[in-house]
Amino acid sequence: MNAIPRLFNACLLRPGDLPPSRNDWEVIGAFNPAAVATGEGVVLLVRVAERPTARKPGFVALPRWDMGVNDVVIDWVRESASEPVDVRVVKLKETGLVRLNFLSHLRVVHSRDGRSIDAIDGARLEPANEYEEFGVEDPRITRLGDTFFITYVAVSRHGVATALASTRDFKSFQRRGIIFCLENKDVVLFPEKIGDRYHALHRPTGSAAFTKPEIWLASSPDLVHWGGHQHLLGGAGAWDAGRVGAGPPPLRTREGWLGLYHGNSRREGDAGIGHYSSGVLLLDLENPRRLVGASGPIFGPEREFERNGYVPNVVFPTGIVEREETLLVYYGAADTFTAVVEFSRRELLNSVRRM
Amino acid sequence: MNAIPRLFNACLLRPGDLPPSRNDWEVIGAFNPAAVATGEGVVLLVRVAERPTARKPGFVALPRWDMGVNDVVIDWVRESASEPVDVRVVKLKETGLVRLNFLSHLRVVHSRDGRSIDAIDGARLEPANEYEEFGVEDPRITRLGDTFFITYVAVSRHGVATALASTRDFKSFQRRGIIFCLENKDVVLFPEKIGDRYHALHRPTGSAAFTKPEIWLASSPDLVHWGGHQHLLGGAGAWDAGRVGAGPPPLRTREGWLGLYHGNSRREGDAGIGHYSSGVLLLDLENPRRLVGASGPIFGPEREFERNGYVPNVVFPTGIVEREETLLVYYGAADTFTAVVEFSRRELLNSVRRM
Repeated sequence: MNAIPRLFNACLLRPGDLPPSRNDWEVIGAFNPAAVATGEGVVLLVRVAERPTARKPGFVALPRWDMGVNDVVIDWVRESASEPVDVRVVKLKETGLVRLNFLSHLRVVHSRDGRSIDAIDGARLEPANEYEEFGVEDPRITRLGDTFFITYVAVSRHGVATALASTRDFKSFQRRGIIFCLENKDVVLFPEKIGDRYHALHRPTGSAAFTKPEIWLASSPDLVHWGGHQHLLGGAGAWDAGRVGAGPPPLRTREGWLGLYHGNSRREGDAGIGHYSSGVLLLDLENPRRLVGASGPIFGPEREFERNGYVPNVVFPTGIVEREETLLVYYGAADTFTAVVEFSRRELLNSVRRM
Repeated sequence: MNAIPRLFNACLLRPGDLPPSRNDWEVIGAFNPAAVATGEGVVLLVRVAERPTARKPGFVALPRWDMGVNDVVIDWVRESASEPVDVRVVKLKETGLVRLNFLSHLRVVHSRDGRSIDAIDGARLEPANEYEEFGVEDPRITRLGDTFFITYVAVSRHGVATALASTRDFKSFQRRGIIFCLENKDVVLFPEKIGDRYHALHRPTGSAAFTKPEIWLASSPDLVHWGGHQHLLGGAGAWDAGRVGAGPPPLRTREGWLGLYHGNSRREGDAGIGHYSSGVLLLDLENPRRLVGASGPIFGPEREFERNGYVPNVVFPTGIVEREETLLVYYGAADTFTAVVEFSRRELLNSVRRM
């Protein structure tokens, strides 16, 4: 890995820093934070993963939000009727379908300087409809005019899709429905229209393995209806052959749209989940469908809190805030922690190999 | 199965009826025909699956269209480096990725009376870009004004997606790009705007098995950009628990939008592909997101040409043409043949169990 120097780096949130949603639950992850600069500093929207503390010998606890009772419930499933797929996912033997052993929601956290947390008691975006019953995850925030648009993953019995919400104050959120149907994650809106269209990076994934997950680009007249789907980038190196996905929203620079993306090193037949590192991509300013270039891995799991956690060896950038010559990048570490790292904008641009 | 009487039924096309695209290839399937009524009768757009006739002991022939040479080529892969997933699909051991052992294109076929074939020498829609290198498959036709819109499956190293094309004469086709990114099949356009939006049924499928494939509904201002994705119908019976997908475009009736959909009976752990049968669904005329009702299976593999072929025990309706009191339904049989069956419209509507 050709790592770029970390000018500043801090673990901002640990699971124990946040109170659980209810007394008999525990927070197991506070990670993958969306981030945006506002007049009052930096707002983070953190994914909080929780699970019940109760244990029943011989049973697995599978939490979900229930539409009928409008509350979270726990399905206790016999261990003999299920098998673990990985540390997060359980497969039910009878149906062959999977469930998560935790439930995620999103929580607003405030930082005045962007380098430390000031308040953790912000608003919550919690599961609230049938597409969110297994959780809401991995948000990104893009400011367009005076509105903040949030793309987030909605997980349910209908699969893994990406939904859109908006807010002006981070106190209340307006849901705008599923914008990328299953399976799609890592949907990231560009911060301005290009031509007369909005644009997004996304990561569709199908059941028939003709490909490993790739980053695609789509465009929209209204942020709700999306089309013009084209492939942009697929993992080709040892570090990103397992899967790739967009990180924070792209930033306008004089040389092009600058983006960070994650890659996973897992190869066919490997045990475990693999390492998640990050690279840089650069897209043409006028035509973002044109990939100007990309870097190899420039940011990988090194620190203790990146190497050890619920899912070891993961850095997963999801937010970015511009400073003078530098960028503050907010990321999830080990699917457990929220952290920030500062990079030189120049160094990131220099890492790109032009095509 | 509660079969509805077949008032008329004929196998219209067999693979041997169509000349292959080149001398050293053979047609192995002429099936899953889109259909539409025009001033000159019924136009069918038939999926033609072909493979090279050459054999090399110890090798598997995997055909594809090559963007560089703008022609089809054959990848000869060692049998020891691959394993069959089913009769159609081969998995490459090194990458874990899959390939098809045939290549499909679409061919225009004419029928004056809708009950027999008059001409097989119509235009072709053949693979022509990177999203189509492993074939174009399973079209549906919807007439909107004086234009015929064709949704079809595009298969490539980027996965299984659905593309849009249009034509006014079935002699030349205008491609309009990928409208539902991977994995999505069985995309069917409604034949008119509802409110101020176009509508489509579609069938997204993800890699994480939180669900079996389901039918969803989406809407669009322009046929190119799609949103408002909502779940409509999932397979619940023994006949359709494996997967479901929309069949021909829905028809307006006084009681609602009448649609046929296919279901597959394969259950977790079953060997083989399962049986494909069809049911009826009825959607609210003003709000097609509201499922008025559905039937059990009313049309299943019974005839010899439905029970024996490249994939046995498949009926797969993909086209529909209205007559006075009846409907001519065009379908693929055993992934090999094109056939037509006539049903009473009244009987189809009566089969629906209201919710």
